Amino acid sequence: MRCLYFDGQLKYRDDYPVPAPAPGEALVKVLYAGVCNTDREILAGYKGFTGILGHEFVGVVEEGAGWEGRRVVADINLGCGRCPRCREGLANHCRSRRVLGITGKDGAFAEYLTLPCANLREVPPGVSDLAAVFAEPLAAALEICDQCHIRPSERIAVLGDGKLGQLVARVLSLTGCDLTVVGKHPAKLALLDGLAATATADAAGKEGPFDLVVECTGSPAGLAAGQDLVKPRGRIVLKSTFASDAVLSSTLWVVRELTLVGSRCGPTSAALRLLARRLVDVEPLVGGVFRLADGAAVFAPPGGLKAIFDCRIP
Amino acid sequence: MRCLYFDGQLKYRDDYPVPAPAPGEALVKVLYAGVCNTDREILAGYKGFTGILGHEFVGVVEEGAGWEGRRVVADINLGCGRCPRCREGLANHCRSRRVLGITGKDGAFAEYLTLPCANLREVPPGVSDLAAVFAEPLAAALEICDQCHIRPSERIAVLGDGKLGQLVARVLSLTGCDLTVVGKHPAKLALLDGLAATATADAAGKEGPFDLVVECTGSPAGLAAGQDLVKPRGRIVLKSTFASDAVLSSTLWVVRELTLVGSRCGPTSAALRLLARRLVDVEPLVGGVFRLADGAAVFAPPGGLKAIFDCRIP
Ligand SMILES: [Zn+2]
Ligand SMILES: [Zn+2]
Ligand SMILES: [Zn+2]
Ligand SMILES: [Zn+2]
Repeated sequence: MRCLYFDGQLKYRDDYPVPAPAPGEALVKVLYAGVCNTDREILAGYKGFTGILGHEFVGVVEEGAGWEGRRVVADINLGCGRCPRCREGLANHCRSRRVLGITGKDGAFAEYLTLPCANLREVPPGVSDLAAVFAEPLAAALEICDQCHIRPSERIAVLGDGKLGQLVARVLSLTGCDLTVVGKHPAKLALLDGLAATATADAAGKEGPFDLVVECTGSPAGLAAGQDLVKPRGRIVLKSTFASDAVLSSTLWVVRELTLVGSRCGPTSAALRLLARRLVDVEPLVGGVFRLADGAAVFAPPGGLKAIFDCRIP
Repeated sequence: MRCLYFDGQLKYRDDYPVPAPAPGEALVKVLYAGVCNTDREILAGYKGFTGILGHEFVGVVEEGAGWEGRRVVADINLGCGRCPRCREGLANHCRSRRVLGITGKDGAFAEYLTLPCANLREVPPGVSDLAAVFAEPLAAALEICDQCHIRPSERIAVLGDGKLGQLVARVLSLTGCDLTVVGKHPAKLALLDGLAATATADAAGKEGPFDLVVECTGSPAGLAAGQDLVKPRGRIVLKSTFASDAVLSSTLWVVRELTLVGSRCGPTSAALRLLARRLVDVEPLVGGVFRLADGAAVFAPPGGLKAIFDCRIP
């Protein structure tokens, strides 16, 4: 089958074997798969991954007890199922977890993938294929709301107008909160018309007007900016995974009694409900649909809108 | 001016004096005003109120420093401004508070009303007059989200498909939660298509499947039903104000470690943001637009959709 394989270099291959599902796994024919900044970080060495990239997808099940023919997205974390964390329902944090297209498990930039049936989530009929590709990153945005009590009366800033910032802003706007997105790109900020106020980093001010700041810039400088923007006793949510480590002004955090919340993967079923209820419009975030054979070129533009592979096109 | 006045009986009057704003108050010409179940309870003796009824409205400011010509809704609680609660920002809970059309302050079923400028909230341009009438009850629904951390991954039930239940369901659906509205009226449940699952009380089951239950039936029986539907360690939010008191199975609450959350008025500015972002569609909830002179007849149908007075029509 065709796929995009990474072993230190990104390679388009058309000779990869179709994977054989392990017991309890389904074989899924991939329709579309989305490119995420994490994929770009893997190309830069994050996680030391070797295999087929891609963790955002929608597909149709070809084999898998009771799942045949169903259109699915997935929870991408595969816990071992036996350790204490897995038994407490923290499979997302299992120490020996595999993660689709990120750690120890071939991903979605391919004609086929396999996943445990328990990880599959059926896509409701009203959700388009392209919208369903966003279920995984939308769930990651929603994870903020699973972790933090976001009050409608709070003032919240999202740092970053890229793909992740756009999804986080869409999710937070649903809470009714007073929302500002801080970004650099007028065209991307314009996509938030009617959903959030927008500002450039300079205009957002340094008087700490925000109850909660969500860091989505993908750059360690975003954390420093967040420290300037948040009120005493406020919260900063870190969504970006940096290849390098960020530096925390730890005394400032103690003196101002700030709370730092790290946030990663989220509730996939809830993301599908938001899409089915038409509460989040993700299709304006599609930057283009490409062939797997376009490979490296599609990964090139950092910080653009969502590039999506149509995995069916030779 | 014309108004609906209550002194033990509801009376349509056309001889009431236009109110004179006190210092710090604005004079507001009322455009529309909505009828709420609380108004019906006042007719039944709740609060022992005498004066002009009505607390849900949209109007235009005629006099009031800097506010002239602006289209407004309002926070309806008027704290004394001097007591410890008011100084802590709890004016909504001031012991000597007045409440528009409910306690010690003439309300909105009139051509004009007065309110402190500090209580006014300007309506954003994209929000229609009829939608703005819902700002007050929508804020009351949002109060649940200000008080409780509602997680996208939770299973939540709203008891009651009336006006309040409809607004609460619309607000909770925005969280992405797995939402079921339990009601009796197929036509009203149909208004929730695409937003929530619906069920009758029998079908909702007694196995306690819900993490959180919101009581919006307006009847003490709703609390008993909530006790059957909620999981151990779950939460029940009480939104209804009953004229009579409800009976709590207190041992059951201790044994099952349930949490009871009473919930009243909410964040008006956040409600206006949801309307401006077009995230809540309230106009399907308008049951009809009437004249103040139609008076008592408009109050008659209990549990119907929202009846609205056009206060400009003689
Ligand atoms: Zn990703
Ligand atoms: Zn494990
Ligand atoms: Zn009311
Ligand atoms: Zn007071």
